Formats: sequence, C-alpha cells, structure tokens
Amino acid sequence: MTITPREDGRADDQLRPIKITRNWLDHAAGSVLVEFGKTRVLCVASASEGVPRWRKGSGLGWVTAEYAMLPGSTHTRSDRESVKGRVGGRTHEISRLVGRSLRAVIDYQAMGENTIQLDCDVLQADGGTRTAAITGAYVALADACASLGVMETLTGSVAAVSVGIIDGVPRLDLPYVEDVRAETDMNVVMTGAGSYVEVQGTAEGAAFDRRELDALLTLAEQGCADLTRLQREALAGG
Amino acid sequence: MTITPREDGRADDQLRPIKITRNWLDHAAGSVLVEFGKTRVLCVASASEGVPRWRKGSGLGWVTAEYAMLPGSTHTRSDRESVKGRVGGRTHEISRLVGRSLRAVIDYQAMGENTIQLDCDVLQADGGTRTAAITGAYVALADACASLGVMETLTGSVAAVSVGIIDGVPRLDLPYVEDVRAETDMNVVMTGAGSYVEVQGTAEGAAFDRRELDALLTLAEQGCADLTRLQREALAGG
Amino acid sequence: MTITPREDGRADDQLRPIKITRNWLDHAAGSVLVEFGKTRVLCVASASEGVPRWRKGSGLGWVTAEYAMLPGSTHTRSDRESVKGRVGGRTHEISRLVGRSLRAVIDYQAMGENTIQLDCDVLQADGGTRTAAITGAYVALADACASLGVMETLTGSVAAVSVGIIDGVPRLDLPYVEDVRAETDMNVVMTGAGSYVEVQGTAEGAAFDRRELDALLTLAEQGCADLTRLQREALAGG
Amino acid sequence: MTITPREDGRADDQLRPIKITRNWLDHAAGSVLVEFGKTRVLCVASASEGVPRWRKGSGLGWVTAEYAMLPGSTHTRSDRESVKGRVGGRTHEISRLVGRSLRAVIDYQAMGENTIQLDCDVLQADGGTRTAAITGAYVALADACASLGVMETLTGSVAAVSVGIIDGVPRLDLPYVEDVRAETDMNVVMTGAGSYVEVQGTAEGAAFDRRELDALLTLAEQGCADLTRLQREALAGG
Amino acid sequence: MTITPREDGRADDQLRPIKITRNWLDHAAGSVLVEFGKTRVLCVASASEGVPRWRKGSGLGWVTAEYAMLPGSTHTRSDRESVKGRVGGRTHEISRLVGRSLRAVIDYQAMGENTIQLDCDVLQADGGTRTAAITGAYVALADACASLGVMETLTGSVAAVSVGIIDGVPRLDLPYVEDVRAETDMNVVMTGAGSYVEVQGTAEGAAFDRRELDALLTLAEQGCADLTRLQREALAGG
Amino acid sequence: MTITPREDGRADDQLRPIKITRNWLDHAAGSVLVEFGKTRVLCVASASEGVPRWRKGSGLGWVTAEYAMLPGSTHTRSDRESVKGRVGGRTHEISRLVGRSLRAVIDYQAMGENTIQLDCDVLQADGGTRTAAITGAYVALADACASLGVMETLTGSVAAVSVGIIDGVPRLDLPYVEDVRAETDMNVVMTGAGSYVEVQGTAEGAAFDRRELDALLTLAEQGCADLTRLQREALAGG
Repeated sequence: MTITPREDGRADDQLRPIKITRNWLDHAAGSVLVEFGKTRVLCVASASEGVPRWRKGSGLGWVTAEYAMLPGSTHTRSDRESVKGRVGGRTHEISRLVGRSLRAVIDYQAMGENTIQLDCDVLQADGGTRTAAITGAYVALADACASLGVMETLTGSVAAVSVGIIDGVPRLDLPYVEDVRAETDMNVVMTGAGSYVEVQGTAEGAAFDRRELDALLTLAEQGCADLTRLQREALAGG
Repeated sequence: MTITPREDGRADDQLRPIKITRNWLDHAAGSVLVEFGKTRVLCVASASEGVPRWRKGSGLGWVTAEYAMLPGSTHTRSDRESVKGRVGGRTHEISRLVGRSLRAVIDYQAMGENTIQLDCDVLQADGGTRTAAITGAYVALADACASLGVMETLTGSVAAVSVGIIDGVPRLDLPYVEDVRAETDMNVVMTGAGSYVEVQGTAEGAAFDRRELDALLTLAEQGCADLTRLQREALAGG
Repeated sequence: MTITPREDGRADDQLRPIKITRNWLDHAAGSVLVEFGKTRVLCVASASEGVPRWRKGSGLGWVTAEYAMLPGSTHTRSDRESVKGRVGGRTHEISRLVGRSLRAVIDYQAMGENTIQLDCDVLQADGGTRTAAITGAYVALADACASLGVMETLTGSVAAVSVGIIDGVPRLDLPYVEDVRAETDMNVVMTGAGSYVEVQGTAEGAAFDRRELDALLTLAEQGCADLTRLQREALAGG
Repeated sequence: MTITPREDGRADDQLRPIKITRNWLDHAAGSVLVEFGKTRVLCVASASEGVPRWRKGSGLGWVTAEYAMLPGSTHTRSDRESVKGRVGGRTHEISRLVGRSLRAVIDYQAMGENTIQLDCDVLQADGGTRTAAITGAYVALADACASLGVMETLTGSVAAVSVGIIDGVPRLDLPYVEDVRAETDMNVVMTGAGSYVEVQGTAEGAAFDRRELDALLTLAEQGCADLTRLQREALAGG
Repeated sequence: MTITPREDGRADDQLRPIKITRNWLDHAAGSVLVEFGKTRVLCVASASEGVPRWRKGSGLGWVTAEYAMLPGSTHTRSDRESVKGRVGGRTHEISRLVGRSLRAVIDYQAMGENTIQLDCDVLQADGGTRTAAITGAYVALADACASLGVMETLTGSVAAVSVGIIDGVPRLDLPYVEDVRAETDMNVVMTGAGSYVEVQGTAEGAAFDRRELDALLTLAEQGCADLTRLQREALAGG
Repeated sequence: MTITPREDGRADDQLRPIKITRNWLDHAAGSVLVEFGKTRVLCVASASEGVPRWRKGSGLGWVTAEYAMLPGSTHTRSDRESVKGRVGGRTHEISRLVGRSLRAVIDYQAMGENTIQLDCDVLQADGGTRTAAITGAYVALADACASLGVMETLTGSVAAVSVGIIDGVPRLDLPYVEDVRAETDMNVVMTGAGSYVEVQGTAEGAAFDRRELDALLTLAEQGCADLTRLQREALAGG
C-alpha cells in the first residue's frame, strides 16, 4: 500500500487550523463560531427558566443540544429537514452526542431548575462537524454560564476530535476527503482533565484490531489536549 | 403625538449600515453574507441539472428559494421547525416571496433545464430579514450565474426594503424595535430599473390611507435604489 | 397589443355578480355562503370561551381564521392537505391574511377573553377566493358578534377585492381565466371607511410601474366600496 | 322504560326528508349535494386517466373515496385534520367504507385504466353522514360515468342508511340526538337489487341479541329500498 | 361451482387450533400470546393511574387498545408505520374495533379513574388477526384486572371470530388463503353470554343476501361460544 | 465503595443465559428469537429483489436494518412511535448501528442487486437490547443467505455485547438494573475473527480513564467470543 501524504500538508498527528470566535452574535447568552479548517459551526447557547416536565420539582437543571446542517453547507446541497418534515437519523444521533458530552461536565444542582440549550448549526461542512460542534459548544456554554453568573455549574471542560486510519496510517482530525477514504473512523470526546466522555469507533471498510484501536486512542488524547488548550486561550481572551 | 428620534440616530429615509460579503463559503456556486445593521442572513445559491417534474421537457429552467431562521437568531430562542416536524406559515410565506422576487428577473429560456436553489438562513434577526434575504440572494444568484457562465439568465436585478409608519412618521428599513411599534408595515421589492416586483403593506394597528401609502412607496423606491447601487458595487468588487 | 373584451361581458371596473347568503348552516354562530361569480366560499364563525395560551390573563379576545379548498373545488382535483399531512404554503399564507384582515376591525377589549374562529372553505374556485373569503367572513363575524350580543367588538367592516392588469388594462375582480393571464395581480383589503388594511401586489410577468400601481389602487378602492355596500345590505336583510 | 316519540315526529321506519341535488358545482364530472334532514354532504366525482401504481398494466380501472368533515359542520367546531397533520381514525374508516361500497357496483374491466375519485365533504353534520355520503356519492359517480360515456362501468346502484335501537325500539335513519342515545347503532349498505354490501353493527351500551339484529336488518332493507327509489328519481330528473 | 375442501382439512364449522399462553412476558400486568393456527398475536395489558384529559374528574376509568403488525409478520414484508410517519387506515380501524369490543364488558365506575391500555402486536399473520387480537386481549385484560384486584371491573367476557363464504359455502375462522378468496367476509364479536358486540360484514366480490348473512351469523355464534370456553379454560389454568 | 455481587449471581465476566431459536416464524427467509436473560428480540430477515435508488445499476446488493421496541416491552409502557408520528432519536441510532454492524461482513458483489432487510423488534427489554439484536440478526441473516443460496455473501460473522463499570468493577452483559447504575457503559461489536466493528463507550456519570477503557475492551472481547461460539452452535443445529 502506498501512503500518500495529507493533501493539506499536515503531519498525521496535527490538527487543522482551529479558530474559536466568541460572541459571534449580539443577543445570545453565548455564541461561538468554531472553525476546524474549512468546517464552520455556529454554536449558540440560550438560557431559559424551568426544566422539561419530567424533571420539574427536582431542583436540578438541564442542558440539551440540537445539531443541524444548513442545506448549502455540504458540497452537494442537502434537503432541509424542516421541509422533509422529519429529523434524520444522523442528525438525531449527533444532537444526542453533543448533549451527552456537555452534560458530562455539568453540576445540575448548581444550575437550579434552569435549562441551557445549545444549538450547533453547521454553516460549512468539511469533515469533523460533530467534533467541532462539541468543542465550540463547550465555549458557548462557558460564556452562557459566566453571563448568568453560574460558573460553578461547570465541573470541567470538554473537547472532541476525530481520528481515523487511512491507507493503514492513523491520522488526526480528518477533513472530508480523508473521512470518505478512512477504513476506520473514530470520534473521541474527552474532558480537559484527560478522561474519556465518549468513544465511538466504526469500521467503515475492514474491521480493526486492538493495536489499531490503541493507536487511534493515543492520537485522540493528544488532539483533545491541544483543543482544550485552545479553548482555554479563547476563554481567557474574552 | 410626540415623535421620538430613531434609536440608532438614523434619518427617517436612511438605510442601516449595509454589508454584502460575497463568497462567504468555499464550495457554493454563490454565497453571500448580507447584513442590514444587526440582521445577518446567509444566502447560498446551489445549481443542479434538471428541473422539477411538472416542468420537465419544457426547455425552461427554474429558480426557487427557502428561507429559515436559526433557533438562536432571535432575541428569545425559537423552536427548530425540523423538530416541530412542519414548516410554519411565516416561513412558507417568506420562502415563496423570495422565490417569486428572484424569478422576476430570470429568463428561463436562457437557463436551459437547470435549477438554481437559493437558501436564505437568518443567522441573526433584527428586523427586515426577508428584505435582506432578497437583496443578498440576488447577489448570490448573480455569482452563481457567473460561475455557471449563464449571466444572460438575469434580465435585471432585484432588491427589497421595509418601510413603516411609526408615530405617524414614515421610516425606511425598520429594525426590530421599530417593527413591533409600527402602525403600518410594508415590504417592497423592486428591480434595479425602478419597477415594482412586489408590494406588501399591512396595517398592524389602524388602517392607513392613500396618502400614507404613497409616502411609504416613495420612501421604498429610494431605499431600493440605494440597495441596487450597493449590490452593483459588491458585484463589481469581486 | 389587441385588447380583448372580458369573456363575461363586464366593464373593466365592474364586479362579478356578488351573492351573500347568511345563515347557510343551522348551528353556527355565523355562517355565510359568499359567491363572486362562480367562486363560492362557505364562511363559518365559531365562538368559544377562552383564548390561546400566549394571551391568557390579558383580558383580551382573539380572532383567527383558516382557509382551505375542497379537493373538487378546482378545475383539476387538488390533493387533500390532511392526506398529504401538511398545510401548503399558499393555504398558510391566505389563512394568515384572512385572520389579519378581520383583526383590523376588532376591539379585543370589548370581546373579553373569548375567541372567534373563522373557517373559510372554498366549495368552488374561479379566481378571487381569498378576497371572497375575507368579504364573506366579515359578514359571518358580524352575525356571530350579534348572536353573542357583542356588536361593540366590531369597530368597522372589511371587504377585499382583486385587481390586475390584463393586456395592459387594469381590471377589477378577476375570474380564473383572467387571473392566469394577468401581468400584475393585486389583492386589496379595505375597511368600510375606505382605509387600507392590506395591499399585496405581485408582478406575475413584467414588473410594474408607479402609474400602473396607482391605477390598480383606484380600481380596488371602488370595488371595495361596492362590496361594503353589498355587505351592509346583506346584514340589513337579516 | 317509557318510549318517547321521535323529536321530529317521524314514524320509526321513516326516513328524514331526503334531497339530492345534482350538478351542484359547475366543473366536476359529477357533483351532488345530498341532504338527510339537516345533514348535508357535498359529493364530487373527479375522473382522471391512469390508475395507482400497484394496478398499472392490469387493464382495470379504480374507484376510491375520501370523506371529511368541515370544521364548522359539527355543533362544536372540530379541529381541521390538515392542521393536525394527520387524518384521524374515524375519517380513515369512513373513507374506506365509502370506497368499498361504491366498488361493489363497478366493472373495472369496463372502466379501462382510469380512476374516479369521490370526495365526500360534510358541510353540516346531524347524524348519518357516512350513509348520506354513500347515497350521494353513488349519484355523483353515475353522473361522472354518464359524462364520460362509460355507464356500463356501473353494474348496479348502492345506497346506505343507519338504524339503531333507542329505548328498546328499532328506528330508521338516526339524527344526532338519537345517535348519541342509541344502545345499538348499525350502518347498512345495500345494492339497488336488495343485496347487502356492508353491515356494521355496534353495541354502544349493552350487547344486542339476534332478534334485535334481525329487526334492525329488516328496517334497513326498507330504508335502502326507499333511498334507491329516490336516487333513481333524481337521476331520471337530470 | 366445485367446492374444494379446506386446505388444512378442517370441517367448515371448525376453529383452527387455538392456543392461549398467559404471562408470556415477565413485567406486564397481563400478557398473552394467542395463536389461531399460524396467526400469532402478542396482547399486553398495561395499567396506569389517571384517565385521558376529556374524562378527568368523572370518577370513571378508561380502556383503550392499539393494534399493529410487525413488518416481518406478513408473507411479503410490510413497511413500518413509524417509519412512514403515519398510522394507516386499516390499523386505525382495527385498533378502534379492539378497544370498542373490550369496553363492552367494562364497568367504568368499578375501575375508578385508571386506564388500562391493550397492545396487540401481530407477530405472524395468517388471517383473522383482529379476531385473535380481541380474543387474546380479553384474557390479558382479565389478568390485569386480577393483578390489580379489580375483577369487578369486568361485567363479562368477549371473543371474536371471522366467518366467510368461499365457493358459496359458509366457513368459520378463515386463514389467509381462504380470506383472499372469500366472496363475503364477516368479523363478529360476542360476549360470553352470547350477545353481539359488533358485526362487520363486507361483500368482497358479489353482494350477499339475507339468507347468507343468517348462515354466517349462526356459524359465528358457535365459533365465539367455542372461543369463550377456551378463554375460560386458559384463565382457570393460571 | 462496597461492591455488591450481581443480583442474578453471575460472575463479572459471565454472560446471561443466551438462547437463540431459529425459524421462529413460518414464512420469513430467516427468523430468530434471541434471548439474553429476560431480554427477548425477534429478528426477521426479508429478502427482496432490487436495491435502493441511489445504488441501482451498481451490481451491488444492500443490507439494512430497523430496530424498534414494542410498547409493552419496557417496565413502564412506552408510547408507540407510529402513533407519535416520528421515529425517536434512540431508535434511529440503534437501527443505524445494527445495519452498519451487519454490513461489516457482507460482500455486496456476491449479493447481486438484491436487498436483505433485518427487522429487530424487542418483545421484552431488560438491558442489552441492541447487542442482542445484532447477535440475533446475524443468525437470521445467515439463515436468509442459506435459503437464498448465497452464503458466499457472508465474509464472516458478527456478535455484540454490552460492558460497563458498576461500583468501579467492570462487568459483562448488563441487565437493566445494572445498566441504570453503570458509571460507564460500552457496546462492542466484533467479528467472529476477533476484530472490532464498532466501539461505543459513554460515560454516564464520571468520565473514565484509559485503564478502565482497556479493561472493558478485554471483557467485551471475551463476551463476543462466547457469543460467536453460541451463534455457530445454533447455526449448526439447524
């Protein structure tokens, strides 16, 4: 198997240029435009009083998320889910993942019976949209907590990155062209403290062995550590 | 009735600061971020071969549009229509208006049996989102036609602006705070040549008389002329 | 351009034969069969205690409307929206227009926290269904207010008419055959006192100029005045 | 148990005043306004070339029906199914019943690969809407077959009537006030030749015995015979 | 017409082998796997406190049912209604029939404001799924009432069977191969005391006469009596 | 932290009693009732000619899956997704997982342009429904391939198991009572040859570290090996 170098010239363990722009909107409690290379996701945090019905009277808060792609965000236009009248399986799956990831660093008690909703809308998609969404949503969430004066709600930070095996070589942060060619594809969500929140690995072509799995996890750990640092710098820069 | 000056200090016949950023995305045939003050709309033009079934074999092309608001674009978060499972009446109405407005300057014959789809997604809403959408969508459409080498498809340009009567005074390009207070609210779509494509005037409070209607039309004519100039400058600057 | 006379022999500024039949049903608070030529719309007003949730506790009433076409009302059968599972854009748009038009002559305070719902169902469509719906719905609404003993809820009357330019000539109250040929098509809603409630003009083919717009408005003013007189006669005849 | 006479003074085996108005609309292949007392149903037959996909190439035609109630047709307004986004169980059930009933007298071979769609819309509901719908739809269908020149498609006629037991007494053609009080409720569809097409009997309160069932069937047979005669007279009168 | 004997060798008035397995699941208040030959339906009764909104404060309970077919239950796989996004007419119709049948033997007063929901899911379909569902659901309902200690809620039992005319011969309990060939098809629901709860007869091919109807009713009475005995034995065996 | 032994007395690395019953239905190409303790899933494979539109003409086959839970399968009845009118996020997610897992051992070329659809319906849920579904669906798929005479379509086998950390201890094959208490929950899909197809680990409470992740993977490897042996025995037993 010939190994072709990455199209964008990156090292295998290198992130794409990452850009985190806070307060991208004027009204929202927290709003972040996060860019992983050409992938651009707008992450908006909205706070509201009260919690969903099944949680009322518990004294606990709630954090939830919705992910979606704009029709023009993909290379070929994709149909609008509102027009189709139903949310697709992939959208559902990623919305649930983003919510679960953020809830890993939430102290519901400290929130009181309030809800923070994260909306992650992909403006341009070039691979890694769900990991960019998680990484940006955390920053929007932190801004919302700060503006609401409830920073103690956050027990840590979360970031996420994709890794995959292309031509037998493990690589970090796959753009679309690599994503479609990957034999194995894994999304890893980690806390700023270096623990795992979520690991989702899928054999796209051939099944993968334990050694490959280990290599991918090691690569992802480093990528998440880098993203954690970039999140901190962004939040410090406010 | 005391007349309060405009909160943003503008003259009654003055547009908000208008910004038209072309090629805002990397892949799309045409993509424009249009800003009318704090209102920000992303307009993306996607071209595809073929036309809807009812038009097949006619030799004619088709142009259509979809308008939507991101959940976090409004002061208070609005529910996602994909999650509600149906497109709301207002969304439908505006999508139809945008499509109709653009079709006023299309030569279907020149297009051949191809379709251009305009997606206008409101990233931040502060009044006048539909008029910003039309104004920006035209520029995205022009870029798409240029990139497809079919500029002869366009028989002219279109721009749109809102006008309204606040405290008895006709004003141009209403932001949200004025929009909610307006007694009468009108959206006007005009060609670059100064003809009307669409006039939609609504008495929000009291009904209005012919004299008021005339004053609003005159104001809108001037606003559309200004927007036409800004569109031309943006397209020349590419 | 050769100007062909109207198929039904009317003068350009003449309404079709208008027929307003009150109490067309036995149970409803108000029920009117309105006919503009072959266009027949059944307008039913139903009163209920209470208001929508967002209005509760305000002390104010609410008036709303739904418009729909029976499948067999059109020349070629149109699919039932209940079967398609969604209300189409045109239906949404007209329902909203009818509601808005009626609300222009309502004193919510005088209603108390009650709701009147207008249902306008097109039994046969031959152009001008929305204007017939508004004109008939007002009469049904007046009957409902009378039967509920709250006539002071009505601060005036509303009527609506379509106007358009065919072969360069402005004409009043277009039947289907003229509607499809119209270069410009405008629906105008006016109060009995002669003020504008809604103006919706659309260039179907070529854009129109200010002079044409003025001619259409003048024609519509006269048509609405005629309809207002016919509404009064119908209500007096009860 | 005291037996109260019928509110409208009818004998127990007497139909309400039946009125069948043909060609109630101007365009449709067949259109009938059928009245069973205050119950009024508009039945419209629309013909189209072709058959549903699963029947293509069979050389056989198809007849289908849709039943619906206008929101204002009931004593208390009922919500519009298009707005609810789904057709209710009762509506589905009756639409299927009407279609099945009409198909009992169709020679598909004689139709060729064409479809006739019957739309039965209840304008005013006062009990027996489904039986009125079937009875009127047959007349509209006959008119459609005549206008299409395919009368040989009809192998007979169908009519339907409701019967029920009130205070222990079997009665024919129940209006709403009787329907809600009936212990047993049965709808019977019969051919003009006196055979059964459909029998649907339901114990609303107590279960019923074979003797009661027999009495109801005998009553229904006579009612259907009367309706068959009225259908013939209406069709002769055209 | 040649009369072919039944494929499975049964006499015309003989049921298929009937099997009623109680407590088929571990958690449910009542759960029954009922088999009519190869037709297998899982009937589960779930109890919950409270009643639907329209019944609150009445002091009365409620019993309702939902019927559905698993996609793989039919000879050719049928699409999943959850995926299609809407419940079909046939499903609606049968769900309503099952609920109505069970409610015929319920004393709502004795239940108090509680709800029992019956879910009848067809695991394998070979004709008579709705009658098997009713027959099994009654047993699951009885088990639920027993486990809730409210046996007085049941005022009797219900069972159901299909009958039909094949080649001119009335037959009991039709499997799929007979069902598709039946000229007339009837479902009969009866109480254990031998009264009728529901009679639904449909002419699939030719209309049927009173004599045939009588023969079918007699056959069904005997089949329901047999099923009632089998239900009692099953419940005694617990 | 006190470690409580498993309620069902199993060792931490022991599967629940596993039962795989083939040919559970009479008609289907493959049908398996799989039981992991009290969890019972019916897996049915249906074959059909042709492939989805986007795959036509490729010469390649397709395998897809749908997962669903019966309303009565859970401790507290869950609403039917067909009635809610939409498939929930969890259902979507698991359906996609099952399909992806099976496709890992398919040679599309060998299938030709045919489709096999797997339906996995949970009859009783007690934890691990998705892993039982995958394990059972593979056996149903193998039976379908055998009956179609295309065993070469299968390039291997797949099985799946859940693992989790409860009170700090890694455990295999969690029932519901353990699942709700697990700090970390992981589903692992492996081929019979011992390679990974899918790894999905989620921190339910605290995030987990690399050492815990490794322990879970080792446990899952052994569990999948055991399941693979049981699948082989079941298939040999046919």
